[in-house]
Amino acid sequence: MSAILEAIFRRRSIRKYEEKPVPKDLLLQLLQAAMAGPSAHNGRPWEFVVITDEATMAKLRSHLKYGKHNAPAAIAVCYNPAIASSPSSKRWWVQDCAAALENMLIAAPGLGLGAVWIGIYPKASSVKLVRRILGLPPEVTPFGLVYTGFPAEEKPPRTQFEESRVHWEHF
Amino acid sequence: MSAILEAIFRRRSIRKYEEKPVPKDLLLQLLQAAMAGPSAHNGRPWEFVVITDEATMAKLRSHLKYGKHNAPAAIAVCYNPAIASSPSSKRWWVQDCAAALENMLIAAPGLGLGAVWIGIYPKASSVKLVRRILGLPPEVTPFGLVYTGFPAEEKPPRTQFEESRVHWEHF
Repeated sequence: MSAILEAIFRRRSIRKYEEKPVPKDLLLQLLQAAMAGPSAHNGRPWEFVVITDEATMAKLRSHLKYGKHNAPAAIAVCYNPAIASSPSSKRWWVQDCAAALENMLIAAPGLGLGAVWIGIYPKASSVKLVRRILGLPPEVTPFGLVYTGFPAEEKPPRTQFEESRVHWEHF
Repeated sequence: MSAILEAIFRRRSIRKYEEKPVPKDLLLQLLQAAMAGPSAHNGRPWEFVVITDEATMAKLRSHLKYGKHNAPAAIAVCYNPAIASSPSSKRWWVQDCAAALENMLIAAPGLGLGAVWIGIYPKASSVKLVRRILGLPPEVTPFGLVYTGFPAEEKPPRTQFEESRVHWEHF
């Protein structure tokens, strides 16, 4: 199998973590991966909040139904229309942010980290909650979180390829 | 630099292609990458249409303002609520499809291919057009296209990391 497919297949949702902080250098590498992502008209409408503070992580865990995992760190991907360099970001920002987030998930195993995507937007209660916990101004929307840390569970690489999902030339 | 960051930095929007078909094996590898992507509650709400027929490609090129590139092939990522295995896909499908699409863009350079993301949803005119050209039933929504082929332009790997986009602990 090609090396790039192996790397992509290693992205698995990790929900158990070692009680060990994530070095800043690795967090910066995740952010480099995120910002290498594509965006409509290269609008790069994103900002990031890195959380390593245990009190903040505890707040996120206690309030987010699907964010209870013991990861020591999180990176919030946020949309800020004021810093987008293209007006088209208004239409495409969800996809831009999703690509940035997915890039971090793919990068994580190659850096020895586990990671999992915690969906926030468009669930209004989660948006409100994360905005409050992270101190985001009202014009900045939290799109999603990556929880990350050193994995305390192992999952085998996989694709979930299904031939029945593929149509050739026409639906 | 770590190998995984190098791989992620190689994803660049390629808009010039060789006049050479893409072997089916490589298209299948792109699809394996796509279906290795995460989705909310593992709903996998996606279907794919692979286009290599020159007449269909010509139709896409002539109608899509941002899809005029001479790629010999395209893969449409579509949302089909009827095959999603989780009701939560209704809320998260755009993000699920974006992650699948981004996986293909990251896989492409590692397979010797170039690729570029052509945004379709939520632009109503593009959705209608692609639905018609690919024969999608009304309940299936075309999310986006990957144009792909052997690259006829070279772009250096890059991140667009900007320190000013990163907040530590709090916005």
